[in-house]
Amino acid sequence: MQWAGKDVPKATIMRLSLYLRRLRKLSREGAETVSSRQLADAFGLTDAQVRRDIAYFGQFGYPGIGYRVGELAERIRMILGTNRRWQVALVGVGSLGRALLGHRGFALKGFHIVAAFDVDPAKAGKEIYSVRVYDMTHLERVIRERGIQIAVICTPADVAQNVADKLAGARIGAILNFAPVTLDVPDTVVLNSVDLAIQLEQLSFQLARR
Amino acid sequence: MQWAGKDVPKATIMRLSLYLRRLRKLSREGAETVSSRQLADAFGLTDAQVRRDIAYFGQFGYPGIGYRVGELAERIRMILGTNRRWQVALVGVGSLGRALLGHRGFALKGFHIVAAFDVDPAKAGKEIYSVRVYDMTHLERVIRERGIQIAVICTPADVAQNVADKLAGARIGAILNFAPVTLDVPDTVVLNSVDLAIQLEQLSFQLARR
Repeated sequence: MQWAGKDVPKATIMRLSLYLRRLRKLSREGAETVSSRQLADAFGLTDAQVRRDIAYFGQFGYPGIGYRVGELAERIRMILGTNRRWQVALVGVGSLGRALLGHRGFALKGFHIVAAFDVDPAKAGKEIYSVRVYDMTHLERVIRERGIQIAVICTPADVAQNVADKLAGARIGAILNFAPVTLDVPDTVVLNSVDLAIQLEQLSFQLARR
Repeated sequence: MQWAGKDVPKATIMRLSLYLRRLRKLSREGAETVSSRQLADAFGLTDAQVRRDIAYFGQFGYPGIGYRVGELAERIRMILGTNRRWQVALVGVGSLGRALLGHRGFALKGFHIVAAFDVDPAKAGKEIYSVRVYDMTHLERVIRERGIQIAVICTPADVAQNVADKLAGARIGAILNFAPVTLDVPDTVVLNSVDLAIQLEQLSFQLARR
């Protein structure tokens, strides 16, 4: 991935999220500073790895002190973009979609689900956890009017590509896909996929070896 | 990760899951053979990468033919361990836990959720999507009696480590963790974590750059 013209490994960005989570916890506990060693220990990393990850984005450490918890958290929030408010839509209000609508953790991190979409006419017009459900035919209009930048796909696999095409047509910026299928999207759309069965298969691979 | 004494990259195991998903689709469509190029094109990989991934586990290709769809799918199922039946427990029957209990895709891939656990006495004794919910005090006994090898943690972050400790004490083989916290588990337990907010942060990082 790119940051200020530099190539940053995807794993580094993933670890930034982990560091931020840890910094939030340290802040709640009243800590003012943290060393790269302390951050490293929390995740089974070396302190050199932690310093290298953070150094991609600037010099935030203080000799003899380490990092200032509040300052580093704020810098990482800016890097990850979670200091902003993101407008999110959810497509497919089945059991997983409904669970995600009820998940309060997203809004705390700047991700506000402001609209949901479903093909089922019985769901359109309803509110679920205060989120309005629209018929799919309103997708493009609502995304434009509400300034929605991110969409979460929770539909069955066989319709997910069609939904992704519609989202790309509505100029969505990014898609988080939970449908168990590999999606094709134009280069203008950032795509991330979470396949829950694949996560279980990674475990069974290791258990099957025993 | 280890396979037959060889070090196999984690990303290779992840791609095996994707190849298997594609092979299932090809099989449903009636295809009998597939080339490494065709598999590669479906995932934006090179055909050399596909051949290298598969070659970690043996020589499954036929010159001038490629791979036989049914045979390769069966071999990957054996490698991933999804040709077996896995007994799975779910801990924390909140909205996400409930959604996962209702997810029919897991059983199709060999992962059978046979018990759920929650601290809420109002939930104990109930059945949700035909899965019995037990009080947490029965965790160790039920895991032993039902031969449960994999646990899925869907609890709030602040209790997840305590749940993981109890699961390790009950000699669970593997944990899939959805709680937004980094867990410490003994080496005897395979751990995989899915943090939904982190997935969204990976998207906002890229959107914030634009």
